[in-house]
Amino acid sequence: MKRIAIDMDDVMGDTTLKIIQNVNQITNSAYTYESLMSNDMALKQGFYDLYINNNSFLWEPGFFVDIPVKENAVDVIKSLNDSYEIFVVSAATEFPNSLKEKIDWLQKNFPFISWQNIVFCGHKHMIKADYLIDDHEKNLVTFTGKPLLFSAPHNLHLTSYERVSSWLDVKSKLL
Amino acid sequence: MKRIAIDMDDVMGDTTLKIIQNVNQITNSAYTYESLMSNDMALKQGFYDLYINNNSFLWEPGFFVDIPVKENAVDVIKSLNDSYEIFVVSAATEFPNSLKEKIDWLQKNFPFISWQNIVFCGHKHMIKADYLIDDHEKNLVTFTGKPLLFSAPHNLHLTSYERVSSWLDVKSKLL
Repeated sequence: MKRIAIDMDDVMGDTTLKIIQNVNQITNSAYTYESLMSNDMALKQGFYDLYINNNSFLWEPGFFVDIPVKENAVDVIKSLNDSYEIFVVSAATEFPNSLKEKIDWLQKNFPFISWQNIVFCGHKHMIKADYLIDDHEKNLVTFTGKPLLFSAPHNLHLTSYERVSSWLDVKSKLL
Repeated sequence: MKRIAIDMDDVMGDTTLKIIQNVNQITNSAYTYESLMSNDMALKQGFYDLYINNNSFLWEPGFFVDIPVKENAVDVIKSLNDSYEIFVVSAATEFPNSLKEKIDWLQKNFPFISWQNIVFCGHKHMIKADYLIDDHEKNLVTFTGKPLLFSAPHNLHLTSYERVSSWLDVKSKLL
């Protein structure tokens, strides 16, 4: 059975959506997910300048509890789980308060994924799998299997990875 | 640089020592670590029968906070860290409350290990490393690198793995 490693933030859940809400609230701004999914580089840079100076909420309890689930993620991952060995692999050890929240979030939204198939780590280059679905180049570039880049505002400029833009895209490639 | 994956419980820390204390307290018994490190199978079975029915403390907050550090673990792992890529790999996702406690424990006792080199998982068979130092056969048997069995009361009967009985043993093998 082939093995798929699946990232959580901005792959299983719409983490950037909640980040935008928090940054907007802190800085009295009005960014939207749609505006950041564009090629308006000045707008994006403006957002990231604010984000980098206003992101302490990532380390605080509560941030990861209610991340919205990506559209079709539950159904497609449930189907993948019948044909592949699925590991959820989240670079979460930077955020100690997120760890229990992420387990609870997975149990609530993806109850078919066992604790035995959840991995919290920093680096991902020691993960052995056939596929890695991830939104960050730093994780994909060192991966020894087939990388799949899940589209997110911060990776739209990348051209050297096979890209998936939605869970229906993943479904059509892997099922 | 070769990569070593190192288990936490009963490898970096004396988890069984704290388990014995808790089981003794709950069941009004007087087991010692030394008595369980023997070949007295009746005594060991007696302890494990009690443990299996009195282990809910593993899931409660606080259990992992103050596990004693194994003798010479800090010095030897610090030296290994100069010559190898070290990953701490703990099968901890079964115990959601342990995750932050384990990060705090590592930061306190092994501050030279970065969050980027900590892995919390269930299964360990998707970990790619040259060595795995672990006390559980279930982790060693699926490992694709060189397994090293760290002696603990529950593994003294195993004969098919290269064994280390202390961190000085690890030092003499790997440094």
